[in-house]
Amino acid sequence: MIRYKRVALIGLGLIASSISHAIRRTGLPVEIHGYARSEATRTEAARLGLATIFETAGEAVEGADLVILCVPVGAMGGVAQEIAPHLAPGATVSDVGSVKRAVIDAVQPHLPEGVEFIPGHPLAGTEHSGPGSGFATLFDNRWCLLTPLPESAPAAVEALTGFWQALGARVDRMEPDHHDLVLAVTSHVPHLIAYTMVGVADHLRRVTEQEVINYSAAGFRDFTRIAASDPTMWRDVFLNNREATLDVLGRFTEELFALQRAIRLGDGEHLHAYFTRTRAIRRGIIDAGQDTAAPDFGRLASAKG
Amino acid sequence: MIRYKRVALIGLGLIASSISHAIRRTGLPVEIHGYARSEATRTEAARLGLATIFETAGEAVEGADLVILCVPVGAMGGVAQEIAPHLAPGATVSDVGSVKRAVIDAVQPHLPEGVEFIPGHPLAGTEHSGPGSGFATLFDNRWCLLTPLPESAPAAVEALTGFWQALGARVDRMEPDHHDLVLAVTSHVPHLIAYTMVGVADHLRRVTEQEVINYSAAGFRDFTRIAASDPTMWRDVFLNNREATLDVLGRFTEELFALQRAIRLGDGEHLHAYFTRTRAIRRGIIDAGQDTAAPDFGRLASAKG
Repeated sequence: MIRYKRVALIGLGLIASSISHAIRRTGLPVEIHGYARSEATRTEAARLGLATIFETAGEAVEGADLVILCVPVGAMGGVAQEIAPHLAPGATVSDVGSVKRAVIDAVQPHLPEGVEFIPGHPLAGTEHSGPGSGFATLFDNRWCLLTPLPESAPAAVEALTGFWQALGARVDRMEPDHHDLVLAVTSHVPHLIAYTMVGVADHLRRVTEQEVINYSAAGFRDFTRIAASDPTMWRDVFLNNREATLDVLGRFTEELFALQRAIRLGDGEHLHAYFTRTRAIRRGIIDAGQDTAAPDFGRLASAKG
Repeated sequence: MIRYKRVALIGLGLIASSISHAIRRTGLPVEIHGYARSEATRTEAARLGLATIFETAGEAVEGADLVILCVPVGAMGGVAQEIAPHLAPGATVSDVGSVKRAVIDAVQPHLPEGVEFIPGHPLAGTEHSGPGSGFATLFDNRWCLLTPLPESAPAAVEALTGFWQALGARVDRMEPDHHDLVLAVTSHVPHLIAYTMVGVADHLRRVTEQEVINYSAAGFRDFTRIAASDPTMWRDVFLNNREATLDVLGRFTEELFALQRAIRLGDGEHLHAYFTRTRAIRRGIIDAGQDTAAPDFGRLASAKG
C-alpha cells in the first residue's frame, strides 16, 4: 500500500527508473517528480516519461511526502544539503545506498526538524545503469533493508515499509552498522573479489575471453557480469564501508593464505578438513530450511570444474 | 551417436550415474558395466539399476570398448594399474577428471599398447554426490573438453566425441596443459575463493547464516552451494593442479592487495579506473557475441549490493 501522494526521486539511474516503473505498475495515482544532475540524464528521463523533471533538486522535492535519494553514496551529503530548505514538513526522506552508516552521517545533519529520515537499501540491480535501464519487476521478491534511526516515528517506518512492499519487495529492518557488516560479507567483498578475478583473467593473455565465458563455473560467470556494474557506485561503496570491508577482507586473505599454503605443501588433510567443514555449513543452512536443496541445481550452476 | 557396445564405468558417483542415465535416455542397446571400491556404493548402484555391477574393476572392464574412469583425480593411477591387464585390445580409456596433465601422468604409463587413452572433462555437476545423485540431463548443453594425446587415433577421438554429443554435451578439444590453466582461472581458483568466503562468513559469528543466505548477491549465493561439493574431489583437484592454481592465486592476491590498499588509502581514482576496466572487459565479451546482455539478468542475479 502506497500512502504517499507525491514521490520525488533524486538521481535517475537504474534504481530510480525502476521505482518509477514499479509505482506506475500499481496503478495508484502517485505523482512522481524527478531530478538528476546531468542534463543528458534529465532529458532522457523526460523522454521516457519516468517523472515530471525539474531543473533543480530543490524544486523536485517541493510538496513531496516521500523523497528518495538515488545517487551514489558519495553524493548523498551534497544532495541532502541542497534539498533541505525545500523539504515539506512531515516529509519522509529515504535513500537506496548500499552503505548505511556513512549515508546517515552525511545526510542527517542537513535535514530540518519535522522531517523523517529512514535509510533504506533495496538489494536489487543489474550491471546496466542509466534512466533507460530500469524495469517494473526489478524489486519483485527482492529484499529491501530499512535501517530506521532510534528517533524514527513508527508510523513513518510503517508507511515506507508499505511502499516497498507495493513495489514487490520483501522488507526487513536492521541496525545500520550491522547492515554494513552483513553486506560487507554477502556483497561488498564478494564484488571486490569478482572485480579482481575478472582482472586476473584479463591479464592472463594465454587464456582467451571466449574460454573464460565458455568454461566458467556458474557463480563465477555471474561475477563477470557483476564486474560490469557502475564503477562510481562501487567506488563509493568501498570508500564508505571501508572498515567493514577491510575487516572482512583481512579475514578472507588470512584464510585464503592458509589454503594456499596447504596446496603448496601438498597438505591434503588440511584441504579435506576445510572443505568438509564448509560442506557442513552449507548443509546446516539447507537443514534449517533457509534454502533449497533443489535437485535441478545442476542445470543452473555447475559445481564441478 | 554412440558407437560403443559396452561401456564400463569405474567409480559410481554423480558423474558415472549421470552417464548411465544419459546413455539409457538415448534408447540405444549399450551394455553398461560398473564398479566402485566401496561395497555400499556397489550395492546402491545395483539397487538403482545403474549398471551390471562387478566385484573388481578388472572384471568390470572386460570386453568393454569404452572405459571411463569416474574416480577422484588422486585415485586414477591406482585404478589404471588395476584394470590394465583386463583391457580389451582396441578399447578406449577415458576419464572425467577436472585436471588433465596429472591424470595423463598417472594413467598413461599403466596402459598396454593397442589401447587408446583419450582424457576428458565434462564441465557439469551439482553439489551432491553418490550413485543416487545422477540424472539424465546433467550434460545437456554443457561442455565436455577432450584433451587427446599426440598419438591418439583420430577415429577413436571422433567416436568419443560422438558419445558425449549423444549424452547431450557440446565437445571441444584442448591441449592438456592449456586445459589446466584455463580451468584454474575459470573454476579451480574461483572454487577456492568460494570455500574461503563461506569459511569467513561462518567465522563472523555476528552475521547469521540466515543473513548470509537472504542477503547474498547472486553468484556468491551459488558459491555457498558450490562450497558444499565433494571434499575429496576438490582436495585432489588442488593437489594435482598445484602449479596453475598457485600461479593464478598469486596474481589474484597481488591484484586484490592493490585494491585493498586503495580502499585503505581512500584512493577513489584507482578503484574507479579498475572498475571501469573490468566493465570494458565484460562489455567486450558481450560485443563479441560470446555472451548475452539479456535485460532480465536482474531477475537472475543481483549486481547491486
